[in-house]
Amino acid sequence: MPELRKDPVTGRWVIISTDRQKRPNDFVFEHARLIGREHCPFCPGHEALTPPEILSYRQNGGPPNGPGWDIRVVPNKFPALQVEGGLDRMGEGMFDRMNGIGAHEVIIETPNHDRTLASMSEPEIERVLSAYRDRIVDLKQDRRLRHILIFKNHLAPAGATLEHTHSQLIALPIVPDFVREEVDGARRHFAEKERCVFCDIIRQELADGRRVVLENADIVAVAPYAPRFAFETWLLPKRHGARFEEAPRHEYESLARLLKSVLARMNRALESPAYNLIVHTAPFSDDVRDVFHWHIEVLPKLTKVAGFEWGTGFYINPTSPEEAARVLRNTKV
Amino acid sequence: MPELRKDPVTGRWVIISTDRQKRPNDFVFEHARLIGREHCPFCPGHEALTPPEILSYRQNGGPPNGPGWDIRVVPNKFPALQVEGGLDRMGEGMFDRMNGIGAHEVIIETPNHDRTLASMSEPEIERVLSAYRDRIVDLKQDRRLRHILIFKNHLAPAGATLEHTHSQLIALPIVPDFVREEVDGARRHFAEKERCVFCDIIRQELADGRRVVLENADIVAVAPYAPRFAFETWLLPKRHGARFEEAPRHEYESLARLLKSVLARMNRALESPAYNLIVHTAPFSDDVRDVFHWHIEVLPKLTKVAGFEWGTGFYINPTSPEEAARVLRNTKV
Repeated sequence: MPELRKDPVTGRWVIISTDRQKRPNDFVFEHARLIGREHCPFCPGHEALTPPEILSYRQNGGPPNGPGWDIRVVPNKFPALQVEGGLDRMGEGMFDRMNGIGAHEVIIETPNHDRTLASMSEPEIERVLSAYRDRIVDLKQDRRLRHILIFKNHLAPAGATLEHTHSQLIALPIVPDFVREEVDGARRHFAEKERCVFCDIIRQELADGRRVVLENADIVAVAPYAPRFAFETWLLPKRHGARFEEAPRHEYESLARLLKSVLARMNRALESPAYNLIVHTAPFSDDVRDVFHWHIEVLPKLTKVAGFEWGTGFYINPTSPEEAARVLRNTKV
Repeated sequence: MPELRKDPVTGRWVIISTDRQKRPNDFVFEHARLIGREHCPFCPGHEALTPPEILSYRQNGGPPNGPGWDIRVVPNKFPALQVEGGLDRMGEGMFDRMNGIGAHEVIIETPNHDRTLASMSEPEIERVLSAYRDRIVDLKQDRRLRHILIFKNHLAPAGATLEHTHSQLIALPIVPDFVREEVDGARRHFAEKERCVFCDIIRQELADGRRVVLENADIVAVAPYAPRFAFETWLLPKRHGARFEEAPRHEYESLARLLKSVLARMNRALESPAYNLIVHTAPFSDDVRDVFHWHIEVLPKLTKVAGFEWGTGFYINPTSPEEAARVLRNTKV
């Protein structure tokens, strides 16, 4: 059973998930190779290599757990958290722990081993966003859970272990630190000004223009003012909304279009970089309808995070967001 | 001039340091190779390849900026922060910035290109710790500075760009988030119990034993209860003390001995892993004499940090600290 443990000094939680360590004495994880086409558990015909599917989209019909799907959601074979059981919160002397209850799922974005999110069509990308939505709506019914994180690790330097393009979902029994900080920050701004901080950012960025990468009717892509990573790009809905899963369909369409363009531009300008993509949406339990503003962050991994970042929690970025936005804006795709 | 910028939502600071980007359109940093022996600016005889030295230890004499040194401290050639100038704090609409004032130095730990901290002798390691101390004591006189971070990136996966073993020092005009969280957590514990949280941890760990890696008269090495990384190891002085630079000499001796043994065991058990080493010491400005407890954290980089960690600020660790401590304790060196 995975365990959630809390650091007694900082209050930081970690997941101790020893099931993910495949062999007892295999501690050298970094050397792990990306799983390629031959042994790909995400390719059609290999459905038996994953746990049974939770959700699939099958335009052309066909029974579950066989070929014919367009999108497939399955439990992670090496889950960091486990769905069954109680939380069993307890102390160990001065330390605090609870069981690692939660969900850990994989969204297989396409049956085609050679596609990437950037090379998929706009309707295909929109379908991925719909799958995100459907899984959030379903998992919200579990009262033990407080937050869902949807993310994507693209290529090995960003932490991917499988080639075939996919996203992951982790549903947690606690609201994680970064989400808490983001929500609290937004709440402070609202308390002071009666305005959403993200709406204020969007207004200032659209008026200023220097950090705007792209926009369409519903979504704007900006290089944030204080980016942790070179070419970090946020995609925000122009209309205020706290929850990704409650966005109207036309926002997913617009988001798919802009996301494809942003990723294609990064591929062109930055030699197809590794990146993490993270969906920021409000925690379940919080009433933050006026306060929080869902968005997507794309974090290219061009530099390595090192001792300075681990020691401080802040980042040295060698590219200004004004320069990054200018480069991406001017990249032809 | 590097810039410090603050994210308006989370309050997170970043350093935008475009001088570190060597060529204007060279955004693909990740491919950078480790600089090896032929072009090593840290080898004796190549002193002219670094900025002039700030400090050197020369048992056998010899003038500055020539061979004959045992340890050499120089400014970073591509500094993330700049020593000269005022802070010029200002707003840009809703955003906040200040000039990136501070120091960024490199501690070249040995003239020998082939040594590592683990293969250096105990007196040589102690000399490195003394150089850390001397630089902190000197930089503390600059009233613009609030905190000094000393860290080491060992091997490329941990962010090293040069082979020749070295540490780095960054002195900052603000107290970084992680340091602030650690100090605030320690302060809360003290306010409640009138005891140092680290002293409490040491007492509980020594009584329990499962997470103790090694100890000697002055220092204990433990796998912390809630480690972010597999085989994360903390080295703490048994005697309470808030500041690394105020430790008595015999603690540096004991620390050098234990650090060598911990690193040698990691090399044996984990195939010479990349790691970050971070000195945790109290910020200048805070009166935290009773509250904070200096220590060193060694963070092996066996797994990649991925979207989950970037999205949550918390970590999935595939190795329990009890298992990690057992393995390191039982490794023969």
